[in-house]
Amino acid sequence: MKRTVFFVSDGTGITAQTLGHSLMTQFDTIDFEQHMYPYVDTLEKADKLLATINACAAQEQSPPLVFSTLVNHDIFQRLQQAQALCLDFFQTFIGPLEQALQQPSSHSIGRSHNPSQKQYASRIDAINYTLKTDDGVHTKEYDEAEVILIGVSRSGKTPTCLYLAMQYGIKAANYPITEEDLGKKQLPECLLKHCGKLFGLTIDLERLQAIRHERRPGSRYASLLQCEQELQMVERLFGHYDIPFLNTTTYSIEEIATKLMLKLGIQRRLL
Amino acid sequence: MKRTVFFVSDGTGITAQTLGHSLMTQFDTIDFEQHMYPYVDTLEKADKLLATINACAAQEQSPPLVFSTLVNHDIFQRLQQAQALCLDFFQTFIGPLEQALQQPSSHSIGRSHNPSQKQYASRIDAINYTLKTDDGVHTKEYDEAEVILIGVSRSGKTPTCLYLAMQYGIKAANYPITEEDLGKKQLPECLLKHCGKLFGLTIDLERLQAIRHERRPGSRYASLLQCEQELQMVERLFGHYDIPFLNTTTYSIEEIATKLMLKLGIQRRLL
Repeated sequence: MKRTVFFVSDGTGITAQTLGHSLMTQFDTIDFEQHMYPYVDTLEKADKLLATINACAAQEQSPPLVFSTLVNHDIFQRLQQAQALCLDFFQTFIGPLEQALQQPSSHSIGRSHNPSQKQYASRIDAINYTLKTDDGVHTKEYDEAEVILIGVSRSGKTPTCLYLAMQYGIKAANYPITEEDLGKKQLPECLLKHCGKLFGLTIDLERLQAIRHERRPGSRYASLLQCEQELQMVERLFGHYDIPFLNTTTYSIEEIATKLMLKLGIQRRLL
Repeated sequence: MKRTVFFVSDGTGITAQTLGHSLMTQFDTIDFEQHMYPYVDTLEKADKLLATINACAAQEQSPPLVFSTLVNHDIFQRLQQAQALCLDFFQTFIGPLEQALQQPSSHSIGRSHNPSQKQYASRIDAINYTLKTDDGVHTKEYDEAEVILIGVSRSGKTPTCLYLAMQYGIKAANYPITEEDLGKKQLPECLLKHCGKLFGLTIDLERLQAIRHERRPGSRYASLLQCEQELQMVERLFGHYDIPFLNTTTYSIEEIATKLMLKLGIQRRLL
């Protein structure tokens, strides 16, 4: 079964897409064909889109779905005329919220992703820090880190760090625990000084082997034995130093980041 | 005026936070104190949180706000008992959606950020590609790029590329146009071959100077004259080759990414 979905916003459409997506995942037998319409901020654009939606409705057996966040009430009303199920997140909740807060909302468009200069700078700072300290480089800068991810090569450290920096402005470094470190059965000096900031990532053997094989087919690095030894030793190391850790095998980057922040008590900041 | 906000979810809480945040930005005179409660997935956790919210309500003059996405109806009902304004995005929209799609939703928790192995791999690929080709490195791999961002140093290329890769699995390379390139008044060879994928970023003079000054105070690199010349020349270059471009001064990373995709006709993929 196929259904056409329109994400519509007078801003970037990211909020509409996020919520729409989270609702759509509850209907996994349906094949959703998705169309993005950001910056629908004039009645002219709304009329054009209305025609597109109605043309789609006429062509298909079932009415399309419209997930929208429209701050402008006139544009919202125009789109409500579409032959579609229109769910607008903004218009649904802004009324009860105005009542609870006892004041009218500002109705200004494009606020969701419009941070202050200071917030913007701290986000860019975090991204730069994370890039600079990626993969065990510049360990002298660990004083500045809010968290240092450790684990064997290809356990998901870099994407998680970048996500933390990008979404929450968190300075996240990462250090790959090498065979040499594992041989010594102790944490390298540069990490020992920052034990409280460490967070370990581990991963199922089969998955690690598959990822490494993809990268360097047939190498010792990708061999089952090598992967197994590294994983065993790194988990022993986590245990020895009482480092909180997570098996990332079945989790998305978002889930890893959320679980990490929860375990370490790092507050999510809004950017 | 201060109000306490709880973001609650049986998953990561990212959807709840995204939508709550986009509503909150419409009330800019209110100081929102925000608390995240992800993974509230048992009645025990819900009861504990209920007590926390009610304690907060008893202490403050105005009832707290609860923005939630709860798939589990029992947990939702428990939290509805809180002395707070509870707005649940999931419960509000799932009913109309089930009706429109003529089928019950799966009510499975944690679906929003749970991509398939294939989607996950393509996301990680894009992140790795973007890191590898950051800052004009590995230009021989441009065949693989979906977009190549160009602009003077510190115009916002790297964060935008990382966002495109992280959020949408888009392979985005970036190339800093140097003084040497600008002196030649033509694009370097490695870019000429990929003209259709190029997107330019520019930025206001004062802002560029401030960013560069922060990085290397008092340097020639950060001087007004240098910044002015580079910006003039790079914009002339964009014009000469008819390269679409954007002035990033007042935009967030999300906005730059959205406008870029809209101009180049790149489809946003859901990850």
